[in-house]
Amino acid sequence: MSASAYLHKAFLLAGKADPKKIRPNPFVGALVVSKDGQVLGEGYHEKAGEAHAEVIAINNALANGADLSTCSLYVTLEPCSHTGKTPPCTDLIIQHRISRVVIGSMDPNPLVSGANILKEKGISVEVLVLPEIVEMNETFNINQILKRPKYILKSAITLNGKIADSTGNSKWLSGSESREYVHRHLRTAADAILTSAKTVIKDNASMNIRIPGQDAEELNVIIFDRNLELLKKENHQLSIFYKRNKSVIYLITDKAETTEALPNVDIINIPINDGRFDLEILHKELILRNICQVLIEAGGSLNATMMEAKAVDEIFTFICPRILMDKAAINQFNSSQIQTMDNAVKLQLLDSMTIGEDILLRHKVVH
Amino acid sequence: MSASAYLHKAFLLAGKADPKKIRPNPFVGALVVSKDGQVLGEGYHEKAGEAHAEVIAINNALANGADLSTCSLYVTLEPCSHTGKTPPCTDLIIQHRISRVVIGSMDPNPLVSGANILKEKGISVEVLVLPEIVEMNETFNINQILKRPKYILKSAITLNGKIADSTGNSKWLSGSESREYVHRHLRTAADAILTSAKTVIKDNASMNIRIPGQDAEELNVIIFDRNLELLKKENHQLSIFYKRNKSVIYLITDKAETTEALPNVDIINIPINDGRFDLEILHKELILRNICQVLIEAGGSLNATMMEAKAVDEIFTFICPRILMDKAAINQFNSSQIQTMDNAVKLQLLDSMTIGEDILLRHKVVH
Repeated sequence: MSASAYLHKAFLLAGKADPKKIRPNPFVGALVVSKDGQVLGEGYHEKAGEAHAEVIAINNALANGADLSTCSLYVTLEPCSHTGKTPPCTDLIIQHRISRVVIGSMDPNPLVSGANILKEKGISVEVLVLPEIVEMNETFNINQILKRPKYILKSAITLNGKIADSTGNSKWLSGSESREYVHRHLRTAADAILTSAKTVIKDNASMNIRIPGQDAEELNVIIFDRNLELLKKENHQLSIFYKRNKSVIYLITDKAETTEALPNVDIINIPINDGRFDLEILHKELILRNICQVLIEAGGSLNATMMEAKAVDEIFTFICPRILMDKAAINQFNSSQIQTMDNAVKLQLLDSMTIGEDILLRHKVVH
Repeated sequence: MSASAYLHKAFLLAGKADPKKIRPNPFVGALVVSKDGQVLGEGYHEKAGEAHAEVIAINNALANGADLSTCSLYVTLEPCSHTGKTPPCTDLIIQHRISRVVIGSMDPNPLVSGANILKEKGISVEVLVLPEIVEMNETFNINQILKRPKYILKSAITLNGKIADSTGNSKWLSGSESREYVHRHLRTAADAILTSAKTVIKDNASMNIRIPGQDAEELNVIIFDRNLELLKKENHQLSIFYKRNKSVIYLITDKAETTEALPNVDIINIPINDGRFDLEILHKELILRNICQVLIEAGGSLNATMMEAKAVDEIFTFICPRILMDKAAINQFNSSQIQTMDNAVKLQLLDSMTIGEDILLRHKVVH
């Protein structure tokens, strides 16, 4: 088997982890392979704070009686060289005198220089970057490099780009299969939904995860609510205030915290500059709360705010078989900040899929 | 082989015709099949004014020495019973005492009652409608039933439904592969392009067919030009006035014809009602000119006019990987006539295709 085949095997192993259990950590898989190509140990990172993939694979190989000094270690991500919640993996590799390490992607964190440290110790290090491995850790990479969550924007639009009629009514533009897809895939993968108090109130949205045949699941929600409308007594009956055991409503405001605290409500104070929340500060506050991936489900104004701040990484658009012809209908992006063809936001089409009568397009935003 | 298999074979035969050579006629294919299932004769309609498929198939079978009185005739469309440019096919079938006729689709023209006439003569008639056969003659059926051309609307839009920036610039929203698709498939299949003088002047569009590696081909163009702007001397140098040998520029106006006629320009006078051209009259004028299928390539206003008049049958939308965020950017449909979700135009998704970096969606308009 070739080096890339072993790395791909380690990649498949890495993918066994539940992304929400490992956050803020990356997916990592590792294999210990003997000189004659036998896999003697394997492991993947399964839970934040617990053993790294390399540790599990090495211990697995030792239990199988491997002589590590004659083995290669294949690992999907550059081994860590610093003490976090667990000791550095480089120490373990050096300690067991593993002769060769093949790395499937580099760690964007400058604190991690595992490859160099191993080389300095005379270990043969090969870096063979596989696109599927880099792709798998996109959220981790964005978190590390941009110091912010990965933001995914989801909209359902008419063929001609409207998300709702002029009264804000969008029921039901997308088909039931598309709505189920949002719950089953997009909400399930997100650490929180980002929306506005206006949307929460207008739609009386609960923003939880509802999949047919399963109990509803809680989900954190980040709500732009400058005037803390949701804390007003008349709004306490809204669906967003369902009984929460493990999720939080984050209210984003520039107002001083009120004394009227509600259970599971966390008020995050973000200053306003030029009439807009300082998103750089919001990004940091969310990372601090271990919110690594955010799904934006909002109206045209918040969608535009996030796009203009270059805080949208991917766009999922459900194109629904309807046309509204009304200049007052609500646009997917309610803004006039990007006006010319030359300045148009560039996207990269990642994939498309027919879902019921809708088409789902997935685009990457090219910043 | 089953009856539907023979009909499908006749359908494949029918599809060999060049649609532009048979217009305004439908695609028709026919097979003469012996009692023991041998195909003894076959034919398809190849050119308007020339022999019908049944005639060719029957003559082919006779040349092969068939005893037609023991044969079945499979024909994709109900045989004609009236004298047009050729005598009625029913006469020929009766004359040759064909015992059984299997018909793949009924003729929407009430003048055609071939099936009944054959039954009255004691011929066994089976009608087995195949969807692919009906679909193949959609243009013909629309022409017959609605007494107007089939209108296909084509747009290239940003993800969020804009066809151009506020200055009207749309170069180049769609990729070169998409533009080639328009020429190779949509323009090639159309009898004429429908557009406005504004678009022709602004884009200096020639509206012909340009396919890499081939000579440019002429194409009729129907131009809404109320004030006959294009007849003004300063516009005579526009690309639309390329040397035409076999195509015509139809100018739609409510103004009396000017004396300044230009070669290959046909001025069609259409009255204006409530500020809009009377499209019912336009439809008739186009059918009179044997224009059976029209491709709408226009701006947001003409697109909306045609939609509102229920004069769009299919929409081809190229969704391009760009976003414009500008309330003044030009919408695919520039109108405020269809305002609520309940009244939204309903579409049916026919198919989707990735073309370069764009996605092409094909929708049928559900009237």
